Amino acid sequence: MQSGKLWGGRFVGAVDPIMEKFNSSITYDRHLWEADVQGSKAYSRGLEKAGLLTKAEMDQILHGLDKVAEEWAQGTFKLNPNDEDIHTANERRLKELIGETAGKLHTGRSRNDQVVTDLRLWMRHSCSTLSALLWELIRTMVDRAEAERDILFPGYTHLQRAQPIRWSHWILSHAVALTRDSERLLEVQKRINVLPLGSGAIAGNPLGVDRELLRAELNFGAISLNSMDATSERDFVAEFLFWASLCMTHLSRMAEDLILYGTKEFSFVQLSDAYSTGSSLMPQKKNPDSLELIRSKAGRVFGREDKEAVFEVSDTMSAVLQVATGINRENMARALSPDMLATDLAYYLVRKGVSVGRLGRRSQGRRMSPRPGVGVSGRAWASAPPPPRRPQMPFRQAHEASGKAVFMAETKGVALNQLSLQELQTISPLFSGDVSRVWDYGHSVEQYAALGGTARSSVDWQIGQVRALLRAQQA
Amino acid sequence: MQSGKLWGGRFVGAVDPIMEKFNSSITYDRHLWEADVQGSKAYSRGLEKAGLLTKAEMDQILHGLDKVAEEWAQGTFKLNPNDEDIHTANERRLKELIGETAGKLHTGRSRNDQVVTDLRLWMRHSCSTLSALLWELIRTMVDRAEAERDILFPGYTHLQRAQPIRWSHWILSHAVALTRDSERLLEVQKRINVLPLGSGAIAGNPLGVDRELLRAELNFGAISLNSMDATSERDFVAEFLFWASLCMTHLSRMAEDLILYGTKEFSFVQLSDAYSTGSSLMPQKKNPDSLELIRSKAGRVFGREDKEAVFEVSDTMSAVLQVATGINRENMARALSPDMLATDLAYYLVRKGVSVGRLGRRSQGRRMSPRPGVGVSGRAWASAPPPPRRPQMPFRQAHEASGKAVFMAETKGVALNQLSLQELQTISPLFSGDVSRVWDYGHSVEQYAALGGTARSSVDWQIGQVRALLRAQQA
Amino acid sequence: MQSGKLWGGRFVGAVDPIMEKFNSSITYDRHLWEADVQGSKAYSRGLEKAGLLTKAEMDQILHGLDKVAEEWAQGTFKLNPNDEDIHTANERRLKELIGETAGKLHTGRSRNDQVVTDLRLWMRHSCSTLSALLWELIRTMVDRAEAERDILFPGYTHLQRAQPIRWSHWILSHAVALTRDSERLLEVQKRINVLPLGSGAIAGNPLGVDRELLRAELNFGAISLNSMDATSERDFVAEFLFWASLCMTHLSRMAEDLILYGTKEFSFVQLSDAYSTGSSLMPQKKNPDSLELIRSKAGRVFGREDKEAVFEVSDTMSAVLQVATGINRENMARALSPDMLATDLAYYLVRKGVSVGRLGRRSQGRRMSPRPGVGVSGRAWASAPPPPRRPQMPFRQAHEASGKAVFMAETKGVALNQLSLQELQTISPLFSGDVSRVWDYGHSVEQYAALGGTARSSVDWQIGQVRALLRAQQA
Amino acid sequence: MQSGKLWGGRFVGAVDPIMEKFNSSITYDRHLWEADVQGSKAYSRGLEKAGLLTKAEMDQILHGLDKVAEEWAQGTFKLNPNDEDIHTANERRLKELIGETAGKLHTGRSRNDQVVTDLRLWMRHSCSTLSALLWELIRTMVDRAEAERDILFPGYTHLQRAQPIRWSHWILSHAVALTRDSERLLEVQKRINVLPLGSGAIAGNPLGVDRELLRAELNFGAISLNSMDATSERDFVAEFLFWASLCMTHLSRMAEDLILYGTKEFSFVQLSDAYSTGSSLMPQKKNPDSLELIRSKAGRVFGREDKEAVFEVSDTMSAVLQVATGINRENMARALSPDMLATDLAYYLVRKGVSVGRLGRRSQGRRMSPRPGVGVSGRAWASAPPPPRRPQMPFRQAHEASGKAVFMAETKGVALNQLSLQELQTISPLFSGDVSRVWDYGHSVEQYAALGGTARSSVDWQIGQVRALLRAQQA
Repeated sequence: MQSGKLWGGRFVGAVDPIMEKFNSSITYDRHLWEADVQGSKAYSRGLEKAGLLTKAEMDQILHGLDKVAEEWAQGTFKLNPNDEDIHTANERRLKELIGETAGKLHTGRSRNDQVVTDLRLWMRHSCSTLSALLWELIRTMVDRAEAERDILFPGYTHLQRAQPIRWSHWILSHAVALTRDSERLLEVQKRINVLPLGSGAIAGNPLGVDRELLRAELNFGAISLNSMDATSERDFVAEFLFWASLCMTHLSRMAEDLILYGTKEFSFVQLSDAYSTGSSLMPQKKNPDSLELIRSKAGRVFGREDKEAVFEVSDTMSAVLQVATGINRENMARALSPDMLATDLAYYLVRKGVSVGRLGRRSQGRRMSPRPGVGVSGRAWASAPPPPRRPQMPFRQAHEASGKAVFMAETKGVALNQLSLQELQTISPLFSGDVSRVWDYGHSVEQYAALGGTARSSVDWQIGQVRALLRAQQA
Repeated sequence: MQSGKLWGGRFVGAVDPIMEKFNSSITYDRHLWEADVQGSKAYSRGLEKAGLLTKAEMDQILHGLDKVAEEWAQGTFKLNPNDEDIHTANERRLKELIGETAGKLHTGRSRNDQVVTDLRLWMRHSCSTLSALLWELIRTMVDRAEAERDILFPGYTHLQRAQPIRWSHWILSHAVALTRDSERLLEVQKRINVLPLGSGAIAGNPLGVDRELLRAELNFGAISLNSMDATSERDFVAEFLFWASLCMTHLSRMAEDLILYGTKEFSFVQLSDAYSTGSSLMPQKKNPDSLELIRSKAGRVFGREDKEAVFEVSDTMSAVLQVATGINRENMARALSPDMLATDLAYYLVRKGVSVGRLGRRSQGRRMSPRPGVGVSGRAWASAPPPPRRPQMPFRQAHEASGKAVFMAETKGVALNQLSLQELQTISPLFSGDVSRVWDYGHSVEQYAALGGTARSSVDWQIGQVRALLRAQQA
Repeated sequence: MQSGKLWGGRFVGAVDPIMEKFNSSITYDRHLWEADVQGSKAYSRGLEKAGLLTKAEMDQILHGLDKVAEEWAQGTFKLNPNDEDIHTANERRLKELIGETAGKLHTGRSRNDQVVTDLRLWMRHSCSTLSALLWELIRTMVDRAEAERDILFPGYTHLQRAQPIRWSHWILSHAVALTRDSERLLEVQKRINVLPLGSGAIAGNPLGVDRELLRAELNFGAISLNSMDATSERDFVAEFLFWASLCMTHLSRMAEDLILYGTKEFSFVQLSDAYSTGSSLMPQKKNPDSLELIRSKAGRVFGREDKEAVFEVSDTMSAVLQVATGINRENMARALSPDMLATDLAYYLVRKGVSVGRLGRRSQGRRMSPRPGVGVSGRAWASAPPPPRRPQMPFRQAHEASGKAVFMAETKGVALNQLSLQELQTISPLFSGDVSRVWDYGHSVEQYAALGGTARSSVDWQIGQVRALLRAQQA
Repeated sequence: MQSGKLWGGRFVGAVDPIMEKFNSSITYDRHLWEADVQGSKAYSRGLEKAGLLTKAEMDQILHGLDKVAEEWAQGTFKLNPNDEDIHTANERRLKELIGETAGKLHTGRSRNDQVVTDLRLWMRHSCSTLSALLWELIRTMVDRAEAERDILFPGYTHLQRAQPIRWSHWILSHAVALTRDSERLLEVQKRINVLPLGSGAIAGNPLGVDRELLRAELNFGAISLNSMDATSERDFVAEFLFWASLCMTHLSRMAEDLILYGTKEFSFVQLSDAYSTGSSLMPQKKNPDSLELIRSKAGRVFGREDKEAVFEVSDTMSAVLQVATGINRENMARALSPDMLATDLAYYLVRKGVSVGRLGRRSQGRRMSPRPGVGVSGRAWASAPPPPRRPQMPFRQAHEASGKAVFMAETKGVALNQLSLQELQTISPLFSGDVSRVWDYGHSVEQYAALGGTARSSVDWQIGQVRALLRAQQA
């Protein structure tokens, strides 16, 4: 396999630019001042319609706000030590620019009104960006899964080798988790996209401001129902933070697996230099810092509940999702051992009493791959003639018999597939010559053809399902 | 107002039966054994279709499982000290009842497969119950809000009196929060309702079990996409726990308000004896224990992540939602003071330069109440002739002028509405005789006619919106 | 009572300067660069003693580091965009100042070594400051408790009036909690004050650096035992954060009480203007922002685990402790009602069978106040002649009898102390004329003379105990 | 090395009895009813001394309480459905046994008084048990560290091989962390061991009960200072839970390392069958369940705050500490590779300009091991004649030079120690024939002789220090 990066070849050079972003200080201002100006412009239109501003006054305010935005955009806006926050800064500057008329902009609008409107506008923008990043990551993973379907490697449970699976099956297990995140994000976005403006301090807006006009101006999907609730509720922030926690958990788990697969002892994947850092003391060290950052960021997302948290989490997520697309792997398709086929040995005994042809014909209405050989071996186990029907062994007994074989092999110090037929027959008379067909990792994975399994057909189905989901979500 | 309970007169007697449930030990078994038997029955049908059970064997297993369920239902099921959990208990009992055939039930099914299927079945049932309870609570609150629209009382911010609002406005602020919870619950339910069965240990099911058949048997809405993900992911548990936390936070905030309103010092509401407990030492004490339990339960919901947590949280929620429906109130509609109309005094100044008629005509396309008098006073401020148009005072200046009036009243030791016109005119020449109209709490609330405000028309609109939401969610 | 501030008259003016600090951005650098330079100077001495630096090289490095410190102190240190953190910044600058010799400073020292040493030095300094602030706060509270011993007010449980207590008793209940915090802080400080330097990356220091010399240079109390543990453990950070959480919880509870006592409805205390802020919409509002900040900060302290958290928490605590010393109160000693003496009525019945003189003589070996009258009434109940010994009523029965009296008073619509002797005697024949002595709040509190109670003698004892504790901790 | 268990040979058989305890339901009652009876006996003595019980009444109560205790001990105590908790159960039973006199036991004692006293008594007992278990675990670890000092293996950072260390050094890194836990536990115990009894509901005890007598009866170390604080504060619970969290984190980290070292890929340790469990599906699986339980329990300890939590955490800790003493290891002392000596290669260059004799003589006043050969190789590098003094290379340059050697070896596809002297000299002319001495793992570890390092002398020092600490703590 080529030594290219795992998730795509976009990044080259000594250190990825996205990695640097992790350590740099971030200014959240741009989208926040944009939101603040946007909200104030809409409100001044509402005031004009309600007869609280003349057309001329409104124009004056709109013009002044555009000037404020321009200063922000050009980096010429000067913060004053007395500015408490972006909202007071903008109001102060507006007054400097257009005089007393600026004081009319806040007629009937409370600070809470303004703050929560800006926050929702800002988060709406931020969630769109996250959605796009997430979709891109999932698409990259699905492409990768499709390209590398024929690589087998050990699936682990409890960090112990469990069963052979396709490498694509592992990739898809993480991609599928991320599709749930993108589904959830759409739901959160819907609840963020609700207009609170026009709620005043607590009792509502007393001046006849048309909230439907405000909604349309700011392109919100709905209007908040109750003014007390609207100005105080932060459910959408809690929801977003929970969403981010869960999404980070998924990315973190994937990172954890990759860190393990990248140890000298596993040697399944190798992280490119661009995503590693060295040690100031040990010259040979190459630490998987990008992956470890993802893990540690996951921990920091939890349990925060304020605006700052949203800003930081959102930016962290963006950076993490991009870094996560730049990981290499090499030296895969190793480390499979016969004892991982002990389950298959038990199934072998179970099947002795069942018409295999019957089994083969099913798998949820879809035929097994017509090609007689797939996977590593290419041998044609599935096409073998059905054994004669005989009394079937319950799985619990077959499990026990296979366990005895494992113990026998361990005791003799040989691999499980090196037990002779005679030895196996001391455990169960059902063993016969065709048991040799069990010792084929390619066969093993092809059995798992039920929906969601690791057989090639099922992996293809998964890829199709995830692609369809993505299309539906983007629509 | 009658001295009946706040949320309805259903509960009488010394101690409400629902209160007792709080302290009693709860057995979660019923739905769990039902789920376990249900899952096993479906799986045996899948095995039969795949040719791994004969029809006769399947019937034997189905019959045995029905017997197991019967024993649970009749309370005759005997747990064995070696039973690790409900799943092994049922399998052990099945084997006792039907013999070795029981060992075939688990062919190709892993413990993880079984556990997560049972958990999803159980949670699906539990969420339905919670949904219904939540809808009932919201409906009760909306009814109450409709019945008590004419009661005014102080709205608080920072525990300081802020503006007069309708009592219904307060009720609806909490009801609206709960509608978001019920919307979110529907989304969680959708993701719970996914079939994992047929995923095996990690690689999938190798025996041709038809997962579409399993889905249909168990009435799941969809099939899990990836077997590794299906057996290990617990997103739906985390989602449910987050949902419960947020919902409990809302109930807890309502409880907090009511505890405060029920102190001797506030005396807005009175908790009935059935929801209070005494002190073993102080004979006069009557503690609002039911409300405090809701608050303390909220704290315990957070941060748990296992099956036990789901069981306990779900039951806690059920009890809490029912207790929350049985709270009394008395002595409302007090404690309004003229300083709470300081905002209105500022608006008075702002309006002096605006055609009031114009303001009155708007309020988002809906007319002000046709009746000339509403609220406490019944005076007909809204129908006063529009003052002549004159240069309008910016709100920031009006706020300052009103603040000066507050300070003047404090300094003189009189109420805000006892300042003479002459005194007010030393602050602003815009004050004239009609300022006396400001001192009417009924007028004050009726101004807030923008959508979401505390005016009667807006409260009616809220009631209609919440009712429509409930109908849509239940459909 | 004078209208002075609650905790001392230090702060005057429109807004307290400490309040402003809450919103200002904080630079943590000073102590951190001091720590970094301090650690590097010590290490260069260690290298010289180990023969890895010549005397001249060491002097060159020491001189260079002094120059670095000077630049920081004078605000002339220029950060370079490539400086990852304070450590690399200082090393980079040192190299600019003294050339290649700077590269010798890091011989055998890992980045982890350096970071954790700096962090411990920084936290040691920070904890000293916190200790001093905490002691000052406790001392102010104890002084206040001593000065205002004669003010009685209601003690609450479950927000319901429970028993009359001294105002000082409430103050001391919070002061005593803070003494536990200061005790715990001393223990945390002991574990922070351990030298990690000389641990290298993981295996230790291979160059014969004398760690005892490093310890003495940096004035640490002990040397870390194991190099792997020393560079990776952050127990002391977790401990500090837990300490901060618990301490903030205590301050937060006191703030919560004061917010409640400051509502219009309670009117026990009044927050001075310097610690309140207004509303941008409602001219009459005066919000207890300083107290609310303490509460909200408490929530933010929990669950963080990195260096930034320590910096922020430490600064927050410093500001909070100082703000907490500037609170006013007025209008206390009200709101006591006869039903709060229902427990005393029960005790009255219990005592009828006991020699009161005997009771009076006890109270743990310390005499009741020699002055016959204390508290509100000044009446001399304690000196009354002992009633004749008669069969004593069990408390459980006395509690029931008193409960009946409460119910009788409620039913008749009178206060508990307005029931006639005849009426009381229908409940129990033990009631006689001396029952009138129960209705005296001063008597009530004076009964609680057991150690820790609210009697004047016990409050004095508490004051003495807390003062002794403070002296011991500071020694 | 023998194939015995890692931490001691106490446990044999198929499944360790302690493992079973994990899953069994636990009754916390014994110590709680003992505490309740103990507290009530002390309080009745206090009432007698205060003249509120006659000697005969006290004897009656004491006798009745002994009977209650006897019933609990013999398992004959019958709970009544109306018993709210252990406290009401015991009082109810006492009344059945001795009649109305039982009602006198609660004179002046509040439920809060009683509950918090019982809780402190119970936790005091529970902490003693934990202390003993912790000390035993540390002792076992230190013994093991002493016995296995000569085994070298890779120390890891970021899961990448870092430097060779002694196996004992790894053990001690965890043991040292646990000594901090045992130190902290002693401090928590001190604050648990404070008498609250005699605080009443809120104002104190009004009946002259001698709290010093109560303290002595119950063997508490001190008396609570303030009655309001005493009945409401739960700092000691929060402290205990934090202590448990931190201790569990340490055990969890050790478990994590061992799980990793036990994978097929690492193969450093092997978990005995008694501490593993199988899979219901995969016959070959042997999962490290005991270690995984420790990890997962760590997560569950966090964030709980009630009495139940204390009970469960305490029992979990006891079981975990014992399970943690039964782990095996085999196949250690492998997996060291020359690139892990790259730091040593840099030190080699640094040392070229230093008198090695001088270095050797130091190491904090203790000589290097007099035996010329230690560790794996036994070669006598330390005793080599000092090289002539020459201009010394700064570490930053040496690090770079060694990094170049690593890169050169990687490029050539050879191990670091297979580069020829000529090749090395193209990087730095300081390399000479004695560089071959670097490639000796035994030498490598012996360099780390500074206190806390991985040299044999330093490991011995650590062992001595930890033993001394244990002795001091137990005193």
